[in-house]
Amino acid sequence: MLYFNNDYSEGCHEAILEALARTNYDQTPGYGEDAFCARAAEKIRALCGSRDCGVHFLVGGTQANFTVIAAALRPYQGVLCAGSGHIHVHETGAVEGTGHKCLALPAREGKITGKQVREAVLAHRRDSSFEHMVQPAMVYISQSTELGTLYSRRELEELSDACRELGLYLFLDGARLGYALAAEGNDLTLSDIARLCDVFYIGGTKVGALFGEAVVIPNPEINRDFRYMIKHQGGMLAKGRLLGLQFETLMEDGLYLKIAKHADRLADRLRQQLEALGVPFLVPGVTNQLFPILPDDVLAELSKKYVFCEQERVDDSHRAVRFCTSWATREEAVEALCADLRKLLG
Amino acid sequence: MLYFNNDYSEGCHEAILEALARTNYDQTPGYGEDAFCARAAEKIRALCGSRDCGVHFLVGGTQANFTVIAAALRPYQGVLCAGSGHIHVHETGAVEGTGHKCLALPAREGKITGKQVREAVLAHRRDSSFEHMVQPAMVYISQSTELGTLYSRRELEELSDACRELGLYLFLDGARLGYALAAEGNDLTLSDIARLCDVFYIGGTKVGALFGEAVVIPNPEINRDFRYMIKHQGGMLAKGRLLGLQFETLMEDGLYLKIAKHADRLADRLRQQLEALGVPFLVPGVTNQLFPILPDDVLAELSKKYVFCEQERVDDSHRAVRFCTSWATREEAVEALCADLRKLLG
Amino acid sequence: MLYFNNDYSEGCHEAILEALARTNYDQTPGYGEDAFCARAAEKIRALCGSRDCGVHFLVGGTQANFTVIAAALRPYQGVLCAGSGHIHVHETGAVEGTGHKCLALPAREGKITGKQVREAVLAHRRDSSFEHMVQPAMVYISQSTELGTLYSRRELEELSDACRELGLYLFLDGARLGYALAAEGNDLTLSDIARLCDVFYIGGTKVGALFGEAVVIPNPEINRDFRYMIKHQGGMLAKGRLLGLQFETLMEDGLYLKIAKHADRLADRLRQQLEALGVPFLVPGVTNQLFPILPDDVLAELSKKYVFCEQERVDDSHRAVRFCTSWATREEAVEALCADLRKLLG
Amino acid sequence: MLYFNNDYSEGCHEAILEALARTNYDQTPGYGEDAFCARAAEKIRALCGSRDCGVHFLVGGTQANFTVIAAALRPYQGVLCAGSGHIHVHETGAVEGTGHKCLALPAREGKITGKQVREAVLAHRRDSSFEHMVQPAMVYISQSTELGTLYSRRELEELSDACRELGLYLFLDGARLGYALAAEGNDLTLSDIARLCDVFYIGGTKVGALFGEAVVIPNPEINRDFRYMIKHQGGMLAKGRLLGLQFETLMEDGLYLKIAKHADRLADRLRQQLEALGVPFLVPGVTNQLFPILPDDVLAELSKKYVFCEQERVDDSHRAVRFCTSWATREEAVEALCADLRKLLG
Repeated sequence: MLYFNNDYSEGCHEAILEALARTNYDQTPGYGEDAFCARAAEKIRALCGSRDCGVHFLVGGTQANFTVIAAALRPYQGVLCAGSGHIHVHETGAVEGTGHKCLALPAREGKITGKQVREAVLAHRRDSSFEHMVQPAMVYISQSTELGTLYSRRELEELSDACRELGLYLFLDGARLGYALAAEGNDLTLSDIARLCDVFYIGGTKVGALFGEAVVIPNPEINRDFRYMIKHQGGMLAKGRLLGLQFETLMEDGLYLKIAKHADRLADRLRQQLEALGVPFLVPGVTNQLFPILPDDVLAELSKKYVFCEQERVDDSHRAVRFCTSWATREEAVEALCADLRKLLG
Repeated sequence: MLYFNNDYSEGCHEAILEALARTNYDQTPGYGEDAFCARAAEKIRALCGSRDCGVHFLVGGTQANFTVIAAALRPYQGVLCAGSGHIHVHETGAVEGTGHKCLALPAREGKITGKQVREAVLAHRRDSSFEHMVQPAMVYISQSTELGTLYSRRELEELSDACRELGLYLFLDGARLGYALAAEGNDLTLSDIARLCDVFYIGGTKVGALFGEAVVIPNPEINRDFRYMIKHQGGMLAKGRLLGLQFETLMEDGLYLKIAKHADRLADRLRQQLEALGVPFLVPGVTNQLFPILPDDVLAELSKKYVFCEQERVDDSHRAVRFCTSWATREEAVEALCADLRKLLG
Repeated sequence: MLYFNNDYSEGCHEAILEALARTNYDQTPGYGEDAFCARAAEKIRALCGSRDCGVHFLVGGTQANFTVIAAALRPYQGVLCAGSGHIHVHETGAVEGTGHKCLALPAREGKITGKQVREAVLAHRRDSSFEHMVQPAMVYISQSTELGTLYSRRELEELSDACRELGLYLFLDGARLGYALAAEGNDLTLSDIARLCDVFYIGGTKVGALFGEAVVIPNPEINRDFRYMIKHQGGMLAKGRLLGLQFETLMEDGLYLKIAKHADRLADRLRQQLEALGVPFLVPGVTNQLFPILPDDVLAELSKKYVFCEQERVDDSHRAVRFCTSWATREEAVEALCADLRKLLG
Repeated sequence: MLYFNNDYSEGCHEAILEALARTNYDQTPGYGEDAFCARAAEKIRALCGSRDCGVHFLVGGTQANFTVIAAALRPYQGVLCAGSGHIHVHETGAVEGTGHKCLALPAREGKITGKQVREAVLAHRRDSSFEHMVQPAMVYISQSTELGTLYSRRELEELSDACRELGLYLFLDGARLGYALAAEGNDLTLSDIARLCDVFYIGGTKVGALFGEAVVIPNPEINRDFRYMIKHQGGMLAKGRLLGLQFETLMEDGLYLKIAKHADRLADRLRQQLEALGVPFLVPGVTNQLFPILPDDVLAELSKKYVFCEQERVDDSHRAVRFCTSWATREEAVEALCADLRKLLG
């Protein structure tokens, strides 16, 4: 079987394996206070164009999400997000487990807008029962989104402006940030993101690492005592060096972007093939996730050889499915899939 | 000003005031282990046709809601409710504060159906990512609903059947249960509710008491150690006798229904007047809450003399508002309002 | 039976009952936004000598404790308290329920000292594993304490100095503050307490009210959005006027101190009788709680006629027990007890 | 510098590195539903002599602790533990963060007894205020303990008997279980532990893995929906295969015990040297942690060449410190330390 169901089916990029082997017997302090973490943080600060922002390494995305949210909010505050947002849909209530409500806004192609944020916050403030409702205090977005779409610089600026005017924090979930940064048409840099957001993370798990997310915190309010927060939430890795080592490797010589570019390019190849065959998409996408709408019988045939994800039923005979490429996807696998699609749909 | 904005603007029914004065110097054990609570619980069990159900007295509705939900659910479980449900909208995230997500379903006139519950639960179970999503484990409904509508016996049976088949708890918020039981056309008794629900409460705060909700728990799983839960959640009143005394008084000689009937009758009077004047309603209602849609200028005029609640803007020149009657509403106040409506709209 | 087991066995002071009856049909806004609450808050501010402090009315002590603590602390922070502190021992983990650890210090006669606080905080900061331990961020004390003892002004100043130097909040649980203020030898005023603490409350439940604690918040950091916190924690009373009314009554013409004085005087009478009979005490006390150590057979005899609380076994044939007086204790009840003690021990 | 400060200063055993490299491009399902995890779980079940127990792989110990505790307890319940227990002292309140109180018992050499558990639980049940106190519902112990001591089979049986009679769960934190199983004089097997405990874990992080703890759950009540719990608590690793792979490797051909034995043997060597030099110990120990009491000047000298942990000051001129060996400690490092000790103390 060929796996296109997600971007975390394999281990990690070779360079990381090599670094692990090379440094295995180095003795280091635990809990992220080692030289690997320090160097990785420095590289990230440099890429973000900020000397001062906090950088912390966590094992996974859900953990990063609720640790950041719980660090930033007071108990009666909640987080505005897309109805399709990962924290709202796919984290088994981990954010609510920290006591905070996800305040879902209707999303368009996985995205929300500065205008929506403004309206929601002002509606809350105008409501005579405002103290009986969760106070919106943070905006959560994902880049790329859960549907593979991208916020443009202008869209992110509008969100950031709305948040700053209204006194909300802006938090960007970058589990797939690499695939966004490397995408055709992307106009956002790490520096832009660090300038526009209060906190965000650079995902490793889905972009070539064994595991790990680098949480970057430009806003010192959220960074205060953040290591206590990590430990309190169960996210302090004893051998924190493993995280430092991976991000040091990924941030060196543009490796992170290079491997994301690889995945995006293969997704482009697949998308162009699908478009050439007249296949419609649930949403237009330029990153490593594609959501084509295909006939049930074609999907039945494809599923004999390929693993992909169910997204949603579109009509009686069609479903949208998700195909992912990754840092590890092989050119031949994509070509095989393209060939089979031509056979089935051509 | 005449207050029609809610059903808790005054103190309490005379009979309660008298009972408080009469028993003021009685010495009793604290924390609800007194004879007043015991007698009130017995009366409620008799009215519910069940000898065994747990009966506990809490001070308020939000407290009752999250104490029940936290007692019933495990950490990863959530509660299905109407999008307009009180726990989802108007409790400042108190349920999320206990770690549980409200799983909102689109409501029709404030109500959800057995069919919706079935679909939501089966969709969850069929989803390959089910463990990444909050597990639905309870259904929360309000009777009467936040929009003043009623579940019929048949509708409640369908919800109850769905819950029992699927292994979910059914929880009925009865903050305004009196006004539901006394309403024209209601076909549900306390016995029916005790038979069909796993837990519910009989609201006192909005139906003639100073404060207090009587939580009735037919399902022993939820009743286990419930007093520990009450204390843990901050709801154990030192002078618990105050709650027992009020419910003993309300449950005596049908007082509870009598005062609810009074409010419903006055609401009927007002509704008929509005209908006679051709005023449309946001939802049709038979209890003590009415949601007429009125022109802005009429509302401006009314607001000089009457207090009512904003509900929502309907179009450029009309808003839906809420008028409530209560156990304390005076006949003359309603007649004055009717007269003014005739003057403004007639 | 005559009840000496606590100070909340009866209803409330007559003046409150009268005020309830007198105002029963007044129509007011809900949730504490009424004129009663406003006037009560003003009186309390005046007594505290502070125009600016927040004043909020909650139903009970456990609720007040965890609402204040959860409002003040970030998730990884905890609260230093006496090992005998109410929050640590007798609230069914309600504070932990909000996610915060009680950091118990060994208490002497129910009290902790500024020196202990300093040592604990500095030990934390010096520990190389400090981020792996709960960060002390608040000190909780009770006045009078759970053992009926008092902090002197000097002791409170030392605690306050330690907290301010170290950046911790000082929180005083005043469930029995009346009995402390009225006690022989007390040298602390409400003004002192408001000046030295960041937050405290004036207990009503145990000092003549039906229920209610007036939370006073001199520190604006804790007061921020405190009404959201109250609602989030389930403590927002619909008919908040009931709380305002009671505190308005208690704060008028020194009623609060007058009724506390009554209880303290009767406790003095009882203590002097016990001392005259050579009875030792578990702790020396000047407020309304006495902890005499009595022979088992004497206690067996007393228990036929009096209700009191078990405190702890002292040796094979003696137990310490608690006798409480209250605003409602009658002179004759105390005299009867004294006579019986003379008969049994004389 | 030579590190003796802990047992997680290096990477991992070679066999794990090799397995990582060998399987790097295997494509697997995510979230622990892969063949590596399945095989590792089977091996563990076989070693535990139980076909049915749940086996789940988590990244770290704090995460394992609070996930297990939150899965097992209802909100008002707490966990009895040694005052020196890891959950009570060194997890930044992570257990309290899930709402549960640690009920600390005075420990002797890091251990608590069945008798203590019985007394605590019976005292709770006899107390007339029992509902106002946290209900003990689980016992947490560590094997080896935080002080390097061991529970004997008899001691564990007594704890298990007490728990079963009283209806409490017994939870054994095995972060250092390998070093316990391999220790001189240990008489407990994995089968014994699986028979006597309701839930425990086999630590990987400190015994040769990069990270990971294998949670074993003989009691199906705690195992119910445990994967939901893992996700809810943020512990679901996307590339769960990494955990499966490591435990598969460790459980193969007795590797786990072999590497633990290595560490224990080197600790024995060091202990014998210290004893021969007349050095006293804070506690007697047979596992990989030693707590010698040494003069300040000797420690000052040692600290130029060796890294070790401060434990506590014993008197004006002596401190107890911790020396740890691990799977990675080299024979020569221990010999160097022994030689230096002889030089300084001989």
